[in-house]
Amino acid sequence: MQFLQFQPVLTSALPTINALKQPTSDAWVEQAIANLDIILLDHSHCERKAAGVALNFMFRYPSNTKMVRELTAIAREELEHFELVNQWLERRNIPLAPLSPPPYGAGLKAAVRPNEPDRFLDSLLVTGLIEARSHERLGLLATHCPEAELAKFYQSLMASEARHFGTYWVLADTYFDREIVQQRLDELAIVESDLLVNLHPEPRIHS
Amino acid sequence: MQFLQFQPVLTSALPTINALKQPTSDAWVEQAIANLDIILLDHSHCERKAAGVALNFMFRYPSNTKMVRELTAIAREELEHFELVNQWLERRNIPLAPLSPPPYGAGLKAAVRPNEPDRFLDSLLVTGLIEARSHERLGLLATHCPEAELAKFYQSLMASEARHFGTYWVLADTYFDREIVQQRLDELAIVESDLLVNLHPEPRIHS
Repeated sequence: MQFLQFQPVLTSALPTINALKQPTSDAWVEQAIANLDIILLDHSHCERKAAGVALNFMFRYPSNTKMVRELTAIAREELEHFELVNQWLERRNIPLAPLSPPPYGAGLKAAVRPNEPDRFLDSLLVTGLIEARSHERLGLLATHCPEAELAKFYQSLMASEARHFGTYWVLADTYFDREIVQQRLDELAIVESDLLVNLHPEPRIHS
Repeated sequence: MQFLQFQPVLTSALPTINALKQPTSDAWVEQAIANLDIILLDHSHCERKAAGVALNFMFRYPSNTKMVRELTAIAREELEHFELVNQWLERRNIPLAPLSPPPYGAGLKAAVRPNEPDRFLDSLLVTGLIEARSHERLGLLATHCPEAELAKFYQSLMASEARHFGTYWVLADTYFDREIVQQRLDELAIVESDLLVNLHPEPRIHS
């Protein structure tokens, strides 16, 4: 099933990518639509975390010029989205509050090999997969959200998530051989989908 | 000596603040002007770190709505400056590279009390002081830099640094009693100035 048709952004050499191995279940959609406020709050945390991840790459690999350039743009965009989501929270009188994360992030982190340069490759691909999954799930929210304005908001963010997946993929392809990238992406995509087989009982973007 | 005349930005109640206890020495100016390329590279690191610090506050205190709003704006601006400084590096063919930090940051961090809410107050004030010092030093670079275009660039960044100092001060004033804020700012400002009494041998923005 093709549920992520990735459109090339950074290079015409980039193939159409169906990165995700399994589509999101209907159970997640039902859970999310029944808990729109919590999903919005979790979404705020996700955008902040995404900016943090981009920044962490730059702290860890400060000499990778192309990476720094691309991820500065991504970090700025994530912060812009963070601001937009927070405006939605304010409008709905949802106070900013901590939320326990679902096991998804820690599960993906555990799949990152600890030694360089594997760590760098895996981190790029895992981050890309999270963006790809966010793209898919924001798309589902855009389709199924009963509130038209909120659905439109999700629609407006979707393209960026796909673009970000593309950026992380291109960066992996810049610093590593394409064959290795593709093979590892395949492996990590299986881990990613497996982590979502059982719906986490607390509603989250990645529950 | 008044070398930081702070202009109120966020509230008319904000007094004119001469936060820094001691002005930067002529020795630093000489060192910096003789090493403009290294100073630019270090400046790039400083802008990235400043974005990271703003983001860390949001990770640590995610429920402080006013703080999150203000620091999202600051983080976005720091990343914009990071990008601008990196464009300068590119133009001068200075490759992105790690640089050992001067003792300044670690020295200030050591002055942050470990227990909350002291830690929050101290972190806000220390970050504000770093912004105040950056404002002063970019101003010195703007005045003394022999390259007109680069001097103009430093001039263009100065106002933000002062504004950021103001934001951190206002946030401290939001979450803590003004008297306590003023007293602790005085104490930390002495630490800050003392750290710069001896010029660090390696040229840095905060050497």
